[in-house]
Amino acid sequence: MSREADGAGAAAPVPAIVTAAVLVIGDEILSGRTKDKNIGTIADFCTGLGIDLREVRVVPDVQEEIVAAVNALRARYTHVFTTGGIGPTHDDITADAIARAFGVPIDVDERAVAMLLERIPKADLNEARLRMARIPAGAALIANSVSKAPGFSIGNVHVMAGVPAIMRAMLEALAPTLATGRKMHSVSLAAGLKEGDLATAFGAVQKAFPDVTMGSYPTWEEGVGFTTTLVLRSRDEARLAVAEAAVKTMLAEVKAELAR
Amino acid sequence: MSREADGAGAAAPVPAIVTAAVLVIGDEILSGRTKDKNIGTIADFCTGLGIDLREVRVVPDVQEEIVAAVNALRARYTHVFTTGGIGPTHDDITADAIARAFGVPIDVDERAVAMLLERIPKADLNEARLRMARIPAGAALIANSVSKAPGFSIGNVHVMAGVPAIMRAMLEALAPTLATGRKMHSVSLAAGLKEGDLATAFGAVQKAFPDVTMGSYPTWEEGVGFTTTLVLRSRDEARLAVAEAAVKTMLAEVKAELAR
Repeated sequence: MSREADGAGAAAPVPAIVTAAVLVIGDEILSGRTKDKNIGTIADFCTGLGIDLREVRVVPDVQEEIVAAVNALRARYTHVFTTGGIGPTHDDITADAIARAFGVPIDVDERAVAMLLERIPKADLNEARLRMARIPAGAALIANSVSKAPGFSIGNVHVMAGVPAIMRAMLEALAPTLATGRKMHSVSLAAGLKEGDLATAFGAVQKAFPDVTMGSYPTWEEGVGFTTTLVLRSRDEARLAVAEAAVKTMLAEVKAELAR
Repeated sequence: MSREADGAGAAAPVPAIVTAAVLVIGDEILSGRTKDKNIGTIADFCTGLGIDLREVRVVPDVQEEIVAAVNALRARYTHVFTTGGIGPTHDDITADAIARAFGVPIDVDERAVAMLLERIPKADLNEARLRMARIPAGAALIANSVSKAPGFSIGNVHVMAGVPAIMRAMLEALAPTLATGRKMHSVSLAAGLKEGDLATAFGAVQKAFPDVTMGSYPTWEEGVGFTTTLVLRSRDEARLAVAEAAVKTMLAEVKAELAR
């Protein structure tokens, strides 16, 4: 795949490509009751760190589904980010499912209890709340600056809350610990043309720059019709600039052709 | 799983459980550039038709990834809904990937050309735009009331545009053709309690009603802290009403206990 080779060319040391998947856990997303906001947040986070997000899955609150998805994704990508299912209620089964996926025991973790006690009075730390301190053996905790109940990382799997504000806080805490890659740079160009008018010429530019990923994104608005945005992406800024110039030339040529 | 048995009990004929998956195809979702809106729309659509959405995947514009995901999902669920990648540009590879997944040929389809000609003057129907009429052999077309270029259904896979307004129009066109199930009913209750205070009692109610799916959904707001919504779901409305009463009793008892 062309993107595998993006790191080539420059004089700087070439880091391996770092990849990731997101696993969203929760019946409420699949029923439509809750509209996911975490996928887009993690996608932006990965792009900012030079991590290639390659796959997303959403699964229900069913242990065997979570285990199967975690094991499929962790074998394939550098990082797996999960969201949801780490609260105190009976439908919060993520921590147990992760322990099962890794084949490790799970129990109340004293480090996690200490974090909970920063916010929750000891008298209120009932059995249900202690469920939030159940952490698979061998996991590192992810701090939660919002409400203290921690997430955790085990192997390459990072387990976070589903509540967006808490998920974002956990991502922040996690960032310094992650293997990251060379940043992907991108350029967006308003084409000023319909996709059908530029597609052939744009495809030819993509062929000339196999190392720069080029996409065309139409938007449609009632009364306006289609507008087209072209997006070019590469880890090599100099190469990206050359490709951008080629696309701009192409757009000018197509416009001149259509005006004839 | 308890949900498999939801249809049991009533006098009405019990339809088989109808399931679905969503496959979102597009680099732009994985890079974070575009924030997906289609997953939530399809989730609501499925719930409205009594279809259980069981899984979502997002994959990049890479043929082998699309083929693998389509084949995994279509073997497992009643319906698969795909979004994205059916435009005229080189990065629109969904139709070809679907043909590959089904092992059927793909070519320009005269029915699709006729639809395109409703909007596009014949002189403008260039090679690129004709790509939008490439349809796998044996597929039924899905009308597109917004911009005419059709989607298609082949086997149990329904291939739709990624632009949300067009995707919604295609869902509307698709609805009457779909196998649907008995509707899932749901009740949302503002708990007025923190999750950690109600979790044990709520878990006991779930145990008493294994045929009603019960979830607890916290939201967090700066300055307000956590609020909790409990959601109960069942295909049997009478049973749902009994469960709702039991949850309300539980909430009153927990509040009385805490006030003591």
